[in-house]
Amino acid sequence: MIRVTRRYPFAASHRLHAPSLTDEDNSRIFGKCNNPFGHGHNYVLEVSVRGPVDRQTGVAIPLGELDGLVKTVVLDAYDHRNLNEEIPAFRDGLVPTTENVAVEISQRLRGAWPEGFPKLEKIRIAETDRNIFEMDERDHEGQ
Amino acid sequence: MIRVTRRYPFAASHRLHAPSLTDEDNSRIFGKCNNPFGHGHNYVLEVSVRGPVDRQTGVAIPLGELDGLVKTVVLDAYDHRNLNEEIPAFRDGLVPTTENVAVEISQRLRGAWPEGFPKLEKIRIAETDRNIFEMDERDHEGQ
Amino acid sequence: MIRVTRRYPFAASHRLHAPSLTDEDNSRIFGKCNNPFGHGHNYVLEVSVRGPVDRQTGVAIPLGELDGLVKTVVLDAYDHRNLNEEIPAFRDGLVPTTENVAVEISQRLRGAWPEGFPKLEKIRIAETDRNIFEMDERDHEGQ
Amino acid sequence: MIRVTRRYPFAASHRLHAPSLTDEDNSRIFGKCNNPFGHGHNYVLEVSVRGPVDRQTGVAIPLGELDGLVKTVVLDAYDHRNLNEEIPAFRDGLVPTTENVAVEISQRLRGAWPEGFPKLEKIRIAETDRNIFEMDERDHEGQ
Amino acid sequence: MIRVTRRYPFAASHRLHAPSLTDEDNSRIFGKCNNPFGHGHNYVLEVSVRGPVDRQTGVAIPLGELDGLVKTVVLDAYDHRNLNEEIPAFRDGLVPTTENVAVEISQRLRGAWPEGFPKLEKIRIAETDRNIFEMDERDHEGQ
Amino acid sequence: MIRVTRRYPFAASHRLHAPSLTDEDNSRIFGKCNNPFGHGHNYVLEVSVRGPVDRQTGVAIPLGELDGLVKTVVLDAYDHRNLNEEIPAFRDGLVPTTENVAVEISQRLRGAWPEGFPKLEKIRIAETDRNIFEMDERDHEGQ
Repeated sequence: MIRVTRRYPFAASHRLHAPSLTDEDNSRIFGKCNNPFGHGHNYVLEVSVRGPVDRQTGVAIPLGELDGLVKTVVLDAYDHRNLNEEIPAFRDGLVPTTENVAVEISQRLRGAWPEGFPKLEKIRIAETDRNIFEMDERDHEGQ
Repeated sequence: MIRVTRRYPFAASHRLHAPSLTDEDNSRIFGKCNNPFGHGHNYVLEVSVRGPVDRQTGVAIPLGELDGLVKTVVLDAYDHRNLNEEIPAFRDGLVPTTENVAVEISQRLRGAWPEGFPKLEKIRIAETDRNIFEMDERDHEGQ
Repeated sequence: MIRVTRRYPFAASHRLHAPSLTDEDNSRIFGKCNNPFGHGHNYVLEVSVRGPVDRQTGVAIPLGELDGLVKTVVLDAYDHRNLNEEIPAFRDGLVPTTENVAVEISQRLRGAWPEGFPKLEKIRIAETDRNIFEMDERDHEGQ
Repeated sequence: MIRVTRRYPFAASHRLHAPSLTDEDNSRIFGKCNNPFGHGHNYVLEVSVRGPVDRQTGVAIPLGELDGLVKTVVLDAYDHRNLNEEIPAFRDGLVPTTENVAVEISQRLRGAWPEGFPKLEKIRIAETDRNIFEMDERDHEGQ
Repeated sequence: MIRVTRRYPFAASHRLHAPSLTDEDNSRIFGKCNNPFGHGHNYVLEVSVRGPVDRQTGVAIPLGELDGLVKTVVLDAYDHRNLNEEIPAFRDGLVPTTENVAVEISQRLRGAWPEGFPKLEKIRIAETDRNIFEMDERDHEGQ
Repeated sequence: MIRVTRRYPFAASHRLHAPSLTDEDNSRIFGKCNNPFGHGHNYVLEVSVRGPVDRQTGVAIPLGELDGLVKTVVLDAYDHRNLNEEIPAFRDGLVPTTENVAVEISQRLRGAWPEGFPKLEKIRIAETDRNIFEMDERDHEGQ
């Protein structure tokens, strides 16, 4: 069993603002991230799968296939996008914090994960070099 | 004589769109950077000064003073901002490419540069790890 | 459930020397780290917490609150300090290896961890790009 | 208990080609990695051990001893080498994917691991900044 | 005037061996880089151009056009290749040191540089994080 | 002509304090760097030389020879050292700012530079990822 991780950068903009909170609370909680005009980041997404190494080919997953899935399911929706305006979940009021971005991307990947792929084990998103968010997919098992 | 460089990250959003061009040309030239909703980056600004080392203190410039200037003149305007909406030069139609961001930041710094500071020599902005833009301030001398 | 990691650099000096060992043994075990005048590093501390994402705000922990705690409890004591002289545990004879620095910082954080915070899950300290030390806080549960 | 990780870069060349597959399948599966003349990488190996911190010395493992083992057992065989030609397992037909390199290095380390060392917990190999492979040694326990 | 730099990684293998020298001299000069089976690196090429910023588009060079040129002229020949076997200059006896790789890539780029492009100013190749080679194209002017 | 740069990390401690200034001025100018017990950094030194590429060997300088010189002349004196106590220039009252460290290392290298070596062109020292100091050796020519 081996864990394979592949890194995908993408650029996006967002604004942190919870519609259910007052302007004062939004400003206090989100600080300059609450700026009404938004701002942006070079996010770095890492997708990790775990599985056995194929005896014949020596790979756990063909990286081209993983790349194709992540491009179709995640990057086409997230790269060079405004998260508040262009991702339905965030347009509907969910705050596009990187925590929620991680949850939303995890849902996309789990929903589209092909049967033949090794197990999706973890996703990790860095918003900047200093802020990192990780979801262990094992926490969703049995739900 | 020594060159001292200090690095300042900031997060901002932008959209590349030239109002004097047709939509087709904007799309062809700027590709996904022309997305009407915008996107964003973790920019990294580097400011370089050149001067002699003070015999008594051993420094070419007190970094706290350089930090104060860059914060007031650049970061307060650029960090966690939408460049198209919140920087006057870009609101007036200049396209907020990183080339133009470098020019605009260079003008801000040259305009506010204190007399006692060593010479402003260069600014460098990385838009991503792969795209880097540099302005040598000596190119402006004598203008 | 999500894991949030925040990165904090600090600069400090130390000397590795065990008072209970002979000079020969100290020199053999610690090599140039045993230099009587000491040396230093740019340490990078990472603090990881695990918790649910708040539905209203979309965050697992307000990073400003985590930053405040880490500054008061760790960075004010460690940043720009001599570990052998200025951290009581190391002044009392504990060798300031990065293993022991990790243990000492873990104790500080656990001792001051606020009730309302999500669980402290892990701390990681890099002494250089090549040497990394990690403590999983779950190893301390039940003690 | 603490986890200590030490990072070791090495440079090597390889060609991905499974002798049991047709040329067409090799080309389809491995793409440009199937180039008959090979290519190469700056690999980065990380070796992680887990153990208690020695009370007297403050270390979990003397890094010089770990370095000596990794040099003798891994780096002397892998650094500045052609993996297909110079590592017996790959000369015998196993495809030198980084998955198999991780397995092979793990076997070398487990086979030579000294009794007095703390537990070998994990190895991680990055083939490039974007492709990372990890083996948790606990997966081999009880075999 | 602005300098724009774009970064291109590629993976390749090589062997350092001068046919005009004895085996002993080759071994002494090139050390483990003289290994007859070769080894490899993740090279990082940076191409820098200098020119004015276009008033209408705000760019000094459309990066897509630079990418297309570098792909056709350099990366298709160098990426996932064995430099000794697949680059004619090195097959003819020139030693594929990174100095000579820089010279050879510089010649390719200068030979294919389109008239309308801003000036090619510099190329930089990192063989590893520690070894960096730079060619200033101004050194070739007037030749 | 090519420029070759080689990177050398070293770990050292220092305290910034000018004996000719009052304690108040030292505290105001150097801030927490004035802490009487000192602190430390992982410095990264880069040494750049410029010269022609040897036709036979394809190198501008044998890196092993450059490494030997830098080890003997710089690293043996600076690595794992206390700069205030162990470098004569700083023991004599010169403040060990990184500006002065750059000057001192430059003097060491110029004093010991072998006749047959290509020209020493530049040294660069990063004190942290954010603070970088560069000396162009051409500024010393003709002195």
